[in-house]
Amino acid sequence: MPIDPQELDELVGEAVEVGRRAAAGGEPATYIPELARADPGWVAIAVNTLDGHECVAGDRGVDFTLQSVSKVFSLACQLRAGDDALWDQVQMEPSGDAFHSIVRLEEEQGRPRNPLINAGAIVVSSRLAGDDPGARIETFRDFLRDASGRGVSRFAMDEAVYLSECRTGFRNLALANYMKHFGVIEDPLQAADTYFRQCALTVNVAELARIGMFLANGGADPITRTRLLSELDNRMIVALMTTCGLYDEVGRFAVRVGIPAKSGVSGAVLGIIPGRMSIACYGPALGPLGNSLAGIAMLEVIVNRLRLSVFESR
Amino acid sequence: MPIDPQELDELVGEAVEVGRRAAAGGEPATYIPELARADPGWVAIAVNTLDGHECVAGDRGVDFTLQSVSKVFSLACQLRAGDDALWDQVQMEPSGDAFHSIVRLEEEQGRPRNPLINAGAIVVSSRLAGDDPGARIETFRDFLRDASGRGVSRFAMDEAVYLSECRTGFRNLALANYMKHFGVIEDPLQAADTYFRQCALTVNVAELARIGMFLANGGADPITRTRLLSELDNRMIVALMTTCGLYDEVGRFAVRVGIPAKSGVSGAVLGIIPGRMSIACYGPALGPLGNSLAGIAMLEVIVNRLRLSVFESR
Amino acid sequence: MPIDPQELDELVGEAVEVGRRAAAGGEPATYIPELARADPGWVAIAVNTLDGHECVAGDRGVDFTLQSVSKVFSLACQLRAGDDALWDQVQMEPSGDAFHSIVRLEEEQGRPRNPLINAGAIVVSSRLAGDDPGARIETFRDFLRDASGRGVSRFAMDEAVYLSECRTGFRNLALANYMKHFGVIEDPLQAADTYFRQCALTVNVAELARIGMFLANGGADPITRTRLLSELDNRMIVALMTTCGLYDEVGRFAVRVGIPAKSGVSGAVLGIIPGRMSIACYGPALGPLGNSLAGIAMLEVIVNRLRLSVFESR
Amino acid sequence: MPIDPQELDELVGEAVEVGRRAAAGGEPATYIPELARADPGWVAIAVNTLDGHECVAGDRGVDFTLQSVSKVFSLACQLRAGDDALWDQVQMEPSGDAFHSIVRLEEEQGRPRNPLINAGAIVVSSRLAGDDPGARIETFRDFLRDASGRGVSRFAMDEAVYLSECRTGFRNLALANYMKHFGVIEDPLQAADTYFRQCALTVNVAELARIGMFLANGGADPITRTRLLSELDNRMIVALMTTCGLYDEVGRFAVRVGIPAKSGVSGAVLGIIPGRMSIACYGPALGPLGNSLAGIAMLEVIVNRLRLSVFESR
Repeated sequence: MPIDPQELDELVGEAVEVGRRAAAGGEPATYIPELARADPGWVAIAVNTLDGHECVAGDRGVDFTLQSVSKVFSLACQLRAGDDALWDQVQMEPSGDAFHSIVRLEEEQGRPRNPLINAGAIVVSSRLAGDDPGARIETFRDFLRDASGRGVSRFAMDEAVYLSECRTGFRNLALANYMKHFGVIEDPLQAADTYFRQCALTVNVAELARIGMFLANGGADPITRTRLLSELDNRMIVALMTTCGLYDEVGRFAVRVGIPAKSGVSGAVLGIIPGRMSIACYGPALGPLGNSLAGIAMLEVIVNRLRLSVFESR
Repeated sequence: MPIDPQELDELVGEAVEVGRRAAAGGEPATYIPELARADPGWVAIAVNTLDGHECVAGDRGVDFTLQSVSKVFSLACQLRAGDDALWDQVQMEPSGDAFHSIVRLEEEQGRPRNPLINAGAIVVSSRLAGDDPGARIETFRDFLRDASGRGVSRFAMDEAVYLSECRTGFRNLALANYMKHFGVIEDPLQAADTYFRQCALTVNVAELARIGMFLANGGADPITRTRLLSELDNRMIVALMTTCGLYDEVGRFAVRVGIPAKSGVSGAVLGIIPGRMSIACYGPALGPLGNSLAGIAMLEVIVNRLRLSVFESR
Repeated sequence: MPIDPQELDELVGEAVEVGRRAAAGGEPATYIPELARADPGWVAIAVNTLDGHECVAGDRGVDFTLQSVSKVFSLACQLRAGDDALWDQVQMEPSGDAFHSIVRLEEEQGRPRNPLINAGAIVVSSRLAGDDPGARIETFRDFLRDASGRGVSRFAMDEAVYLSECRTGFRNLALANYMKHFGVIEDPLQAADTYFRQCALTVNVAELARIGMFLANGGADPITRTRLLSELDNRMIVALMTTCGLYDEVGRFAVRVGIPAKSGVSGAVLGIIPGRMSIACYGPALGPLGNSLAGIAMLEVIVNRLRLSVFESR
Repeated sequence: MPIDPQELDELVGEAVEVGRRAAAGGEPATYIPELARADPGWVAIAVNTLDGHECVAGDRGVDFTLQSVSKVFSLACQLRAGDDALWDQVQMEPSGDAFHSIVRLEEEQGRPRNPLINAGAIVVSSRLAGDDPGARIETFRDFLRDASGRGVSRFAMDEAVYLSECRTGFRNLALANYMKHFGVIEDPLQAADTYFRQCALTVNVAELARIGMFLANGGADPITRTRLLSELDNRMIVALMTTCGLYDEVGRFAVRVGIPAKSGVSGAVLGIIPGRMSIACYGPALGPLGNSLAGIAMLEVIVNRLRLSVFESR
C-alpha cells in the first residue's frame, strides 16, 4: 500500500492549516528567554518517504534549534560509536515525571530513567568523542551530516540561544552536578555545556525530515544506502521515542497518534513511521506539557488519515 | 508477507524450550499466598493468527488466573459500554512507579496514572455494569465470552486465589479507600472486591490467545466478524499496553521485544501483533520486576525471529 | 518566679480578645462535614497552674471534640500500659509532610514517622486494651478520667461527628489498610473505628486544661499526686509534642511560641509549660495549615508575656 | 538550683568515659575524604556555665572543622546583620529528609525547609556581607570572634578539608544550582564556595563551648555583656536547633536528651541549655544517621544526670 505522492502533498498542505489553528492556543517557551522571541504563528512541515518523495509546506524557511530533538541523534551518534556501556549509567524506562525533574535521581542514585529526559541526555552528551565541548559538538555535527547523506553541512549553532541557556540553565547544571556526585558523569560543567550546544544547533523542517530518514529505515540511509546504526540499535531508539519521547504527554500521544516521536521546546517534533517515512514539524506555540501544538496536530492528521499508526491493524 | 503455519509451529516449539530455560532463574509470586503454589517449571504458549491458524505448545492443560491481564479486558468491556467519562477519572500516562504504588495518587488527587496499574484498574472495575461485584463480574465474563467468539463459556473463578487476595489485598484496599477520599470511586470495598474477582478468573493459554484476537484485529473478532470495539478504542488499548503494560519493565520490553503486551503476576502475558496475531504465554516463574521470565523470553524469540516488532521497518 | 494569680487572670482575659481578632481570618474545618457547623467566632481558654490556680475565659460552655489532641492522651494511655513494643512500629521523627500524608508510608514500609500524625495515632489506637473499638474507647476514657483526677466522668462521644468521620474518613482507612499490608496493625477497620471514636470524644476548655496537668508535672497529677506516667515517658511525650505536635507548622510555632503543644482540627490546642501549667485553648476558625488561629495567638500572648518558652534563658 | 562546679567536673570526666564506649560502634564520615582521616577514638568535651565555670575533658587539644555546626553561627551572623528578608527564601520547618536531600526543593520551588539543612545554610552563606567568598568568610569569622568575647582570634581554615569538599561537594553544587534556577540565590558557585569555607573553619572543644555561650544566654555574651542577637532572634535559633538540628535523628534526640543542639559530620556537637550552659562535644565516630556517637552519649549523660532537658518539669 504505497502512498500516492499527490495525495500526500495535498494532505500535508491540509495539515498546515490544521496546525495553524491548533497553534492559536499556545505560547512559545519562555524558560529560555531567547526562545520566547519566536513568532507563535509559524508552522511548517516536511515529509520524506523512504521511496524518495519529499514534500514541504508552511513556513519552510524558518530555522529553529533542535533542543530536545537532538537527544535522539546524540543517542544514535553514541550507539554508532559502540558505547554499550552507556546503559550501565542510563535506564530505559519512562519516568512519569517532568523532563527536568531531579526527584527520581535521588532515589535512583543518579542513574537517569532514560536517555530522552534531560538528565539522561546530559549523560549521553558527556560521552561523545572529543576532549572538550567544542570537539564533542563536532563529533555530533558529523553524525548529523552523515544522517543527512552529507547533503547538509551547516547545522549552525544559534549563539543567542546557546548563551541564553548558559545564563539560565541552572536546573540542568543541578542535574549534572547531582549525577557527578553519584559518579555517573565526569565533568558536570563540560557535560552541561555540550548539552547546551547540541540543543542550540539549527535546522529547518526539510533538513530535519531528511536526517530522520535512517530512523524510519532500520538504521540505514535509504538514499545513500549508508548504514548509520545496526537494526537492533535503531529499533531501540524508535522504541524509546515511543515510550519516552514526549515528556509527560507520551501516553496520550501514543493513544491519539501512535507513532515514535520526539519533541523539543523550540517547537520541533520529529515523527517516524517505521518502513515508510520521516516527518518533521515545527510550530513554536507550545501546549501546557511543553510540546508543539501545531506539531502534534499535524502528525495526528497525517497519521490518522493514512492509517500509519504502529498500533493500527493494517 | 504471510507467515508459514509450519514455520510458526516449529518456532513456537522452540520458544517453549527457550522459555523453560529462562524460567529457571525465577520464582512464583508470593504476595498472594495461593499463587506461590504454582510449579515454577510450567511453561505454555498459544498463538492465534488472524487468518485462523492456531498453535499451542508446552503445558497447555494448566489453568491460571488472569490477574493483571484482566485489566486489558475490563477496560475493553467498559469502553464497549461507551464509558468515555472514564477518562475524567483515569489518566493515560506511564507511571514510572511500581504497579501498586500509592505515592503518585497523593500528588495527583486520587486520579490514577493509567488504567493498567492497580489503582486505575480498580476504577475501571468499579464502573462495570451491575449492582454488586457478582453482577459486575457477570458483565465482565460476558465480555470475555464474546471476545472468545462464544467458544469459551466458563472463565471459572479460582476461589482459593480469590479468598487469598481478599485476605491479603490490603494494599489494594488502601488504594480504593484513597481514591474514594478524592471522589474517584463510589464504594471502595465493592470496587476492590470486583477487582479481586476479575483477577481470579481462570483461563488456559489457548483460551487467552483466542480472546486476545480482537485486539490484533482492530477491535473485531476475525473469526466471527463481530465488532467488540471501535477501531479508535481498540488502538487506544493497544497503545496503552505498549506504554504501560509491563509495570516498571515496559521501556526495556519495548526495546527488547517491541510489541503491545500485558502481564500478570500469575505468570500470564498476552502479546498483540496488530494485523497479525495474538500470543498468550504462561510461566509462573517471575523476574525481579514481576513479569513472567518464560513469557517475555518466548515473546522475544517469536517477535524477533519473525520481525514482528511494531518498531521494525518492515 | 511564681506567677501572680491576678496577673494571670487579667492576661487570660486579654488573650481572649487577641484570640477573637486572630480568629477573624479563618474558617472551621470542612473535611469532616459536622465540624463545619461550629461558630467561627467561638474562643475559649483555660489555664491550670501546678500550684492549683485555675482560670477560664471566653466561650467556656462550648463542648468540642478532641480530634488530634486525643493523640497525646492515647499515647500516654498506651505508655502507661507498658507498651514499649509500640516503638517497633512507630518512629519518633517529624514528618515534614501533611498530617494525613500516605507518601512516606510507602518508602518506610508502613512504619509511621511519629505517633502524632494520623497514621501513627491509628497504630496507637489499635493497641489500646480491649477486644473491640468500644472496649478500647473505654480503656481510653478511663485514662482521661484518671488524668482529670476522677473529677470529670463523661467524655461523651459526639455521635454526629463520629458518624460524619465514619462516612468520610476514607483517607484514614487508606492509611490503616496500607499499614495492615505491612503488618503494622492487625485489623484496619477496627483500628480506624477506634481512632474515629477517640477523636469524637468531647470536652470543654476547663476539662482539657485539667487533664493536661500531668504532662506539665512530669507525669504525676499535681492535685491528687497520682502518677500516670514515668518521668521518662512523660518527657518523651512532651518532646514529641514539640517536634511533631502542630502538623506542618511545628517549626514556626517553636520559633513564635516555643512550648510543647498539640492541636486538633476541631480548633482545640493544648499547650504545656513544663513545671508550670497546662493551657487549653479552643477556637474553631483554622488557619491554612489546619491549626486554630485563636489558639495559637492566645498561647503566643501568654507565653511571651510571661516568658514561659522552653527556649527562653530564664 | 545552681550546679556545683566540682560535681560538674566529675560528671564531665565520667561523660568522656561514656563517650569513648559509645564511639566504639562508629566510623568517621567518609563522604569528605579528608574527614575520614580522623582517629575514631578521639573524644572531647567542654562545658561553659553562664556563671563563668569552664571545664574541659578528653582529647582537648584536637582541632576539628565546624562543618554543619557552622550553620547555627552563620544564621546568627546574618540575623545580627538584620537580614529578616532571609525568611522569604528559607522556611522554618523540619524536613523529614536527609540533610542533603534535593527532593523537597522541587516541590517547594527552591525554598529550603529550614536554615540548618545544607540547602538552607547555602542560602544563608550566600547572603553574608562581602563581595566574594573570601570577604564573606571574614564577616563570618568576625562574628565568631565576637561570640568568643574576642578571646579567640584564629578560626583557621583547614585547607585540606576545604579542598576535599571543593573536589567532592557536587551534591551541594547541585543544590546551589537548583536554588539559583528558582531565583533563591544569586551566584551558585560563590554560595557553595562560601559554604565549603565556613564548614572548614577549625576550633577545639573549649573554643566551641565558649562561642556557644550567647545562645544559652538569650543572645548576649554573659562574660563581656555584649549583645550579639536580640532575645527574639536568639530564641528563634535555639528553637530551630531543637526542631531541625540533628538531621533525621532530631525527634529521637529530643526524646532521649531534650535540648537544643546542632551536629556536624566532623563529629562536633554543640548543645545549649538555655539560662544555664553551653556544651561542646567532639567525637568523629558517627552513627548511621551522621551524628557523633560520643557527642550524643555525652550530652545524654550530663543532661539526664542534672535534669537539664528543656522538657523537664523542673
